[in-house]
Amino acid sequence: MKRHIRFSEEEQALLLLDQRYLPAEEKWFVCRRTSDVISAIKKMVVRGAPAIGVVAAYGCCLAALSLGSDDAKWQKELSNKLLRLAEARPTAVNLEYAVKRMRAIWKADPDIRLEDLLWLWIKAAKDFHSEDLSANKAMGKLGQELLADGSTVMTHCNAGALATGGYGTALGVIRSAKSSGKTVSVIANETRPFMQGARLTAYELHQDDIPVRVACDNAAALLMSKGLVDAVLVGADRIAANGDVANKIGTCGLAMLAEQFSIPFYVAAPMSTFDLEAASGGSIPLEERPEQEVACLGTTRFVPEGVPVYNFAFDVTPHRLVHALITERGILRPPFDRSIAELFSDTTV
Amino acid sequence: MKRHIRFSEEEQALLLLDQRYLPAEEKWFVCRRTSDVISAIKKMVVRGAPAIGVVAAYGCCLAALSLGSDDAKWQKELSNKLLRLAEARPTAVNLEYAVKRMRAIWKADPDIRLEDLLWLWIKAAKDFHSEDLSANKAMGKLGQELLADGSTVMTHCNAGALATGGYGTALGVIRSAKSSGKTVSVIANETRPFMQGARLTAYELHQDDIPVRVACDNAAALLMSKGLVDAVLVGADRIAANGDVANKIGTCGLAMLAEQFSIPFYVAAPMSTFDLEAASGGSIPLEERPEQEVACLGTTRFVPEGVPVYNFAFDVTPHRLVHALITERGILRPPFDRSIAELFSDTTV
Repeated sequence: MKRHIRFSEEEQALLLLDQRYLPAEEKWFVCRRTSDVISAIKKMVVRGAPAIGVVAAYGCCLAALSLGSDDAKWQKELSNKLLRLAEARPTAVNLEYAVKRMRAIWKADPDIRLEDLLWLWIKAAKDFHSEDLSANKAMGKLGQELLADGSTVMTHCNAGALATGGYGTALGVIRSAKSSGKTVSVIANETRPFMQGARLTAYELHQDDIPVRVACDNAAALLMSKGLVDAVLVGADRIAANGDVANKIGTCGLAMLAEQFSIPFYVAAPMSTFDLEAASGGSIPLEERPEQEVACLGTTRFVPEGVPVYNFAFDVTPHRLVHALITERGILRPPFDRSIAELFSDTTV
Repeated sequence: MKRHIRFSEEEQALLLLDQRYLPAEEKWFVCRRTSDVISAIKKMVVRGAPAIGVVAAYGCCLAALSLGSDDAKWQKELSNKLLRLAEARPTAVNLEYAVKRMRAIWKADPDIRLEDLLWLWIKAAKDFHSEDLSANKAMGKLGQELLADGSTVMTHCNAGALATGGYGTALGVIRSAKSSGKTVSVIANETRPFMQGARLTAYELHQDDIPVRVACDNAAALLMSKGLVDAVLVGADRIAANGDVANKIGTCGLAMLAEQFSIPFYVAAPMSTFDLEAASGGSIPLEERPEQEVACLGTTRFVPEGVPVYNFAFDVTPHRLVHALITERGILRPPFDRSIAELFSDTTV
């Protein structure tokens, strides 16, 4: 897959492949200001926890680019822009993480000139982007060991190149299995209401010649009962210190069904998705999104006027349902409170 | 709710409220020939097991109306029309049941004149329609005992007036709870791909001032985990002799989640939905429907070209997950093989 997040210093712009129009159209959404980036994240031009992180890092650069060093208040304005950027969406911790990392560079030298900070940030954002890509490749290589040759993997939402800096978390594992010579096919749950599975996962895998078939979310139990699913593999938006996993709405139900059918349930996520300050899933903020995403198809409302809808965008899968957490530094096994603590004990994040 | 299935002898027509366009438009689909009825059933102008049964009974009348008694082969032609009608959709046993009942009237007097048979059939179809309505009201009255005042019921698909001769099976129980003075609110799972929950269940209940809220199918586990669901109550397309329940795709997963959260799972269905010849769910034919129902929104395909989809329309809920089967003759409890056998032991069906 081609790069869907492109930063250009010359043009002072961040170009995002607009995921709202895929697969029908490949439109590019151009961000020149922080507000464009915030809007792109809120409106899901770009989505997927690691991708949001990468975009936020570039968003910090655009924030600095928009300010003049002769402005006496540039520090205050920049700080405010970063705050607003970090709050664009609440669940994916990668967003906070990326902004925090950029802010740390600034904090390390509070008297730095704006031009110098900008230079450091652009380098850091590019590094962050490449690191995410490398992390995906590393977790792909490690994670593919979990997939047997000939197996069919059910995935939910899109945890692919489009959800990350490139390559993908869950789909990275599948890509890596293919690269290592295995035949793996995928069932992509369509993932209402935004249809990330039907639109984006199917688009990515089809481009890469990995066999993929789309199913309605509510078909999971039937497909499992027919023996069509060998493993469930998803990404994550935030993982708590005890291993509870916040991910796209429907993930928790899927994990429960997998348990009923004795199908292993795996989560692939880079270390930037872990939030050790969240002791358990209960501390993770779960976003509620606008009603019309559920009530309308395009601009046509199909739910009767006056009838409210629920649109929780995420749920939490209890760690007891997770068989393994695939990270770029290794595959974690239960008990996760211990394996996660060990993973981070020798790391500065 | 107004009558959505209307037969007119004078006009020699069956009028169906076209469920494909609800709630946006109230269009009527006019059937004058058996082929119109078959088309209406196949294309889901009308759906819901009991409703399909009622429509099929009227469809037999249209079949007889279309033939002339001076045609030497009317018996053979009529028989063929009935065969094709019975095969319009495979899962809902009510369709077979209705045609079998009409055929039994004919078999009782094989030398009957066409005019006389028509007269008997029109009466029988109308009786069948009223019986279904009465059965719904009876099961509503019995079933509402299971719902506590103030409870929130999650339902899947549409098991309401639109799915039956009127009043509804699952929604009949909810209507009856309201009539008996209880406050009951409903979470309607949208039910992909045809959106019976978001469109039809929401439409019916909103018209009756019963509080209803729509949710994506994949939100069930989250809503249950939040304590928002007190009971799950659905209809059925076919119930096997052991209590296994074939119903709209997603029902089995929902029952499994209900079990995980210790939420009772109830099924409301008239006796015409039981198939004692099916020893278990494994003997029930599960319909696969056209790909475009899943792959397209309206006429726009959103799944990438070349990517196949699954469109199983039904699944089977194992009887062990069912807390009670609500019928017009009483509430059945496990072990269902025994309670179902007892129910039918003193009945000719």
